[in-house]
Amino acid sequence: MTPNAFFAGNPRDWPVYQTALPDAFARAGISVNLLAETDDPASVDYIIYAPSSAIQDFTPFTRLKAVLNLWAGVEGMRMNQTLKVPLTRMVETGMTAGMAEWVLGHVMRHHLGMDAHILGQDGAWRNEMTPPLAKQRVVGLLGLGALGSACGDLLNKVGFQVKGWSRRAKSLPGIECLSGEDGLESLLRSAEILILLVPLTGETENVLNAARLAMLPRGAVIINPGRGPLIDDTALLAALDSGQIGHATLDVFRVEPLPVDHAFWAHPHVTVTPHIASATRAQSASDTIAENIRRGEAGEPYLYLVDRLAGY
Amino acid sequence: MTPNAFFAGNPRDWPVYQTALPDAFARAGISVNLLAETDDPASVDYIIYAPSSAIQDFTPFTRLKAVLNLWAGVEGMRMNQTLKVPLTRMVETGMTAGMAEWVLGHVMRHHLGMDAHILGQDGAWRNEMTPPLAKQRVVGLLGLGALGSACGDLLNKVGFQVKGWSRRAKSLPGIECLSGEDGLESLLRSAEILILLVPLTGETENVLNAARLAMLPRGAVIINPGRGPLIDDTALLAALDSGQIGHATLDVFRVEPLPVDHAFWAHPHVTVTPHIASATRAQSASDTIAENIRRGEAGEPYLYLVDRLAGY
Repeated sequence: MTPNAFFAGNPRDWPVYQTALPDAFARAGISVNLLAETDDPASVDYIIYAPSSAIQDFTPFTRLKAVLNLWAGVEGMRMNQTLKVPLTRMVETGMTAGMAEWVLGHVMRHHLGMDAHILGQDGAWRNEMTPPLAKQRVVGLLGLGALGSACGDLLNKVGFQVKGWSRRAKSLPGIECLSGEDGLESLLRSAEILILLVPLTGETENVLNAARLAMLPRGAVIINPGRGPLIDDTALLAALDSGQIGHATLDVFRVEPLPVDHAFWAHPHVTVTPHIASATRAQSASDTIAENIRRGEAGEPYLYLVDRLAGY
Repeated sequence: MTPNAFFAGNPRDWPVYQTALPDAFARAGISVNLLAETDDPASVDYIIYAPSSAIQDFTPFTRLKAVLNLWAGVEGMRMNQTLKVPLTRMVETGMTAGMAEWVLGHVMRHHLGMDAHILGQDGAWRNEMTPPLAKQRVVGLLGLGALGSACGDLLNKVGFQVKGWSRRAKSLPGIECLSGEDGLESLLRSAEILILLVPLTGETENVLNAARLAMLPRGAVIINPGRGPLIDDTALLAALDSGQIGHATLDVFRVEPLPVDHAFWAHPHVTVTPHIASATRAQSASDTIAENIRRGEAGEPYLYLVDRLAGY
């Protein structure tokens, strides 16, 4: 029987997914009834989901086989007691490549000191400073999942010395992989540019606190495309004011959109970006959704299944 | 007999080269007398040279074997009739890597639309636009010499579609190599971001004129780390004003430093950078100088010998 997949993503995105999903189902060789609305939750086999959806109670979906996320981050869903079926998070080539490119661009901005010129079009010929080469610069990555490892790989290709930290020890080509509390301190002591891409869990909330900010080399740059609560905001503002942190480029926040009166907007050494580091690309995301429906129908294990105890 | 090498670079750089050159001579296993001054030009075997040097008449250097440039560009020297010995230009790993990194940084700035955020810290949450991925973006390179091909290689590693043009047909991995007038037009018609790295010769002066600016996709970005006279400045300003060109990032100019009252400084869609795209790095540049002195003494052909008829 052809399964019913109900689109509960952002309605703004429906016009794109309305064609991207059927195209992906065709590429995967599967038949799926795609529904934009339903008055019969008991007929739904799969929910294609955004955590911002109005649907937070999964109880009426009595036939549900899986909830397939369009988002990479699922930290708001792990405690949902009404969700009894497998939950997958989004990993897709477009999002992964987009994240790595965004991170690379912001790393290059700080590596080259580009702001001196972008913001300095006043007629002064500031040619004193020759930046170090990438091979002389250590970039630290907290988090070596699908996104973190893709960033590390791209930064390594460009020539940076990449050090990465993950909760569980990993081994990745071209990245000095560290784990544990000692590994974290070792990474922080050397990272002139630090990128936050660990998932948000009880363990990682405020992972970048005052003590750890103090371990970084003076003037280090923080780039956070991960999740807002990974950083202790008050400690970061103090470290920016003291010069311990040279700049912070922040894409994610405890409250989004970031309120207009938040100190980050006004701080001269903070760049706020509006949660754009990595967008789900409809075509490649639809391929991930289609592959997971194919697996669900074939009784095969889902890709990117969330471990709700670990939180990601 | 130990050869005499006279340093006629920028005096500001002598403190660094004073130790970098002897270190490189030691690494190359050669003996050289390094002179910062000389009252006996007839005793000099090699001049380590910057074209900005006060020495423009080589006649008194009767024993001279070669002039070894510290600069990549030698367009001011080809007509010097007093220069009768081989002239080499600088190619060195630090300069090449630095150029490729500078170009990548400025490409990423425009690729990602970073200015919207770097210059837009006003509290507005501008998250509508998802940039294309690098694999969906064509970057064009005019010039596929040591610097151009290094830039193309790095941009290719990051994932861009790279098209390159050179006077003589070339074949380089990962770059769609074009040549001839048809090839130039084909490149210009597709390049959303265009990088100028051809040497400055009689043929390439004003290579980017009004007609060729009009061939680019509307809103294209120009990045010029090559030489100022490659661009017809008046035509560029008109194309910027009409919106045909979206932005120009210019590192080199007909007159340097660029005069404070030049229209480029004030234009909202021009970024002036002060001839910093690629600096000679003393350690790796000294290795190139040492290798060429070793070759000169051994009677082997020089590296990076300038073809003074072609002009580079």
